[in-house]
Amino acid sequence: MVAQLGHDHQAEVFPEGLTLDCGITLAPLRVAFRTYGTLNAARSNAILICHALTGDQYVAETHPVTGKPGWWDILVGPGKPIDTSRFFVICANVLGGCMGSSGPLTPRDPARPEELWGVDFPPVTIRDMVRAQKKLVERLGIGRLFAVIGGSMGGMQVLEWAASFPESVFAAMPIATAAHHSAQNIAFHEVGRQAIFADPNWRGGHYWREGVIPARGLAVARMVAHITYLSEQALSRKFGRRLRPGPVADPLAPFSDVFEVESYLHHQGSSFVRRFDANSYVTITRAMDHFDLAAEAGGDLAHAFRGSPTRFCLVSFSSDWLFPTAESRAIVRALNQVAANVSFVEIETDKGHDAFLLDEPDFHRTVAGLLAGSAEHAGLA
Amino acid sequence: MVAQLGHDHQAEVFPEGLTLDCGITLAPLRVAFRTYGTLNAARSNAILICHALTGDQYVAETHPVTGKPGWWDILVGPGKPIDTSRFFVICANVLGGCMGSSGPLTPRDPARPEELWGVDFPPVTIRDMVRAQKKLVERLGIGRLFAVIGGSMGGMQVLEWAASFPESVFAAMPIATAAHHSAQNIAFHEVGRQAIFADPNWRGGHYWREGVIPARGLAVARMVAHITYLSEQALSRKFGRRLRPGPVADPLAPFSDVFEVESYLHHQGSSFVRRFDANSYVTITRAMDHFDLAAEAGGDLAHAFRGSPTRFCLVSFSSDWLFPTAESRAIVRALNQVAANVSFVEIETDKGHDAFLLDEPDFHRTVAGLLAGSAEHAGLA
Repeated sequence: MVAQLGHDHQAEVFPEGLTLDCGITLAPLRVAFRTYGTLNAARSNAILICHALTGDQYVAETHPVTGKPGWWDILVGPGKPIDTSRFFVICANVLGGCMGSSGPLTPRDPARPEELWGVDFPPVTIRDMVRAQKKLVERLGIGRLFAVIGGSMGGMQVLEWAASFPESVFAAMPIATAAHHSAQNIAFHEVGRQAIFADPNWRGGHYWREGVIPARGLAVARMVAHITYLSEQALSRKFGRRLRPGPVADPLAPFSDVFEVESYLHHQGSSFVRRFDANSYVTITRAMDHFDLAAEAGGDLAHAFRGSPTRFCLVSFSSDWLFPTAESRAIVRALNQVAANVSFVEIETDKGHDAFLLDEPDFHRTVAGLLAGSAEHAGLA
Repeated sequence: MVAQLGHDHQAEVFPEGLTLDCGITLAPLRVAFRTYGTLNAARSNAILICHALTGDQYVAETHPVTGKPGWWDILVGPGKPIDTSRFFVICANVLGGCMGSSGPLTPRDPARPEELWGVDFPPVTIRDMVRAQKKLVERLGIGRLFAVIGGSMGGMQVLEWAASFPESVFAAMPIATAAHHSAQNIAFHEVGRQAIFADPNWRGGHYWREGVIPARGLAVARMVAHITYLSEQALSRKFGRRLRPGPVADPLAPFSDVFEVESYLHHQGSSFVRRFDANSYVTITRAMDHFDLAAEAGGDLAHAFRGSPTRFCLVSFSSDWLFPTAESRAIVRALNQVAANVSFVEIETDKGHDAFLLDEPDFHRTVAGLLAGSAEHAGLA
């Protein structure tokens, strides 16, 4: 039904499970992950990378479903800014995801492997995702992570790691993120979910039982999200108002053509549905929408970081309107209030939110610089 | 099937029809309209208001379908900024609309009134819309309009009026608009259209034959568009991250609630489908996407206005990210290049694109001021 179902993703299983914020205990808990590089003898050189909404654990290798390069191949590898000849890099598929970690595509009851959770998978929070990662990190024998790094929803996880397990995070790099999801971002997510629910193949979320997928709705959700990942300037530069011939010859000349930006979005939508599960999309977008670190800390974001030993480096991108610089500044202010160790870099770019995935030399230098400086402070050779 | 079908909208019919930019002659042409105030003896006090994508001719009276006040009731009426005790105000439903003008909901062949155009209604352009309005204005015996005013897609029509019929426009007020649709705006429109096409009740556009409407898809289209009409600040101020109980009690506590912004969008979507036709939505959004006044003028926007006798007053809103101030400035630059009579006002507001429909005193003063000044120049008592 969905391509990723056939794959056997590397994973650790925790029979005792995990009690979620909603009160349900998910047992067994399965955490799929990939690692790159070698853990040193002191187990002190581990970097956890947290992926974004539609990312996964295949950071720096050919993706087993799509056959494409890893999503952070540009940043992670031997000699790259996140240098795997020096650091041991871990990335886990988030709880609720669809690449092998417990989620809508995993069995509800291990005794009946053909019956998947589907729409009945319990709601998860960003904190639940982080707790699952913590279990994996412990299983790997790592007490303290040298660094936790991630962009967008990955950045939310970085913040949650620092707040929940301050002693386990030497350096934290939340990129293009926020301490809560804004009303506008919730609204865009809700549009995507409504498009999924409106698809006749949604079948109340039980589409997998009937051998169909809500592909059109999921594609629309991806399309609207994709617009928010780019800046207006980037869209104008890439596509402008250029037309290309439409799929069907039509005597009504002016409108048989489609704009290039339209066909680009169609492609984004249709390729996405081949690798992502609609129930996962709903589950994870809800986790993002409900993320509110200040609320978790009693209403004051600064409380989340009081006494934190972690070294923070926040990064934002000037043309990111999904997670604008102001969101990072608000986090920096909270960190400053409790005299945390914090630096902040705004990268000038017109590529929008997606810049954290792209070839942005200033950003890459910032990542390399933070890791070099922090490694020195951590006494890493 | 759709509420507006049952209504008998005031209209003028042109048996000779209109030859559209696509080459098809639409005959007969029907232009539904409303007027307010009285045309003076010299026929020199007429103001044409051009409505936006989802607006219609019911500017300043109770809407016959929704029962709500007119969409510009706040601005148009006796003693209001567009003073109907002084001016004769006309507003026509756009070509392709669904409130009585020729469009997907009108019969293809007057001899077979039960057979509607539906999805086969030809593609129309903003210029076609303006030509249809010109025929109406002539039918009403008006050679020169004192003013043409409109926001958003209405502003595109104002620009097109000034470019196509410069001698017929004494003053032009394009508000919160642009001389072409940007790649980002095209992208948002395309997401809406894809949501409509993905609805099982779309039926290839022939839904009316089968007694259904693609309500969910159209609602999603409205939702995504509605986000673009508001600013992030306005959404945050109105809704923030406040939750309200969801429609179904659910043991999974945190997610049985919905965010207020979600339920607001649901309401926007569901109320829209009761008054608007999906084929009209597709037709009109395509007209906006293809609007490019510079291209019409041989690639240089300034050429569109060379020698224009019209007095222009452009208005933008500081927090409008759908038609940002930069778009208005580009038009002003083109007008300056040909030494046109132009003024430009950016209104400071955090209400986003929708500000042109809302209680914005500075904006209302600007409209009143332009009309007073222009009336003096026009020798209107």
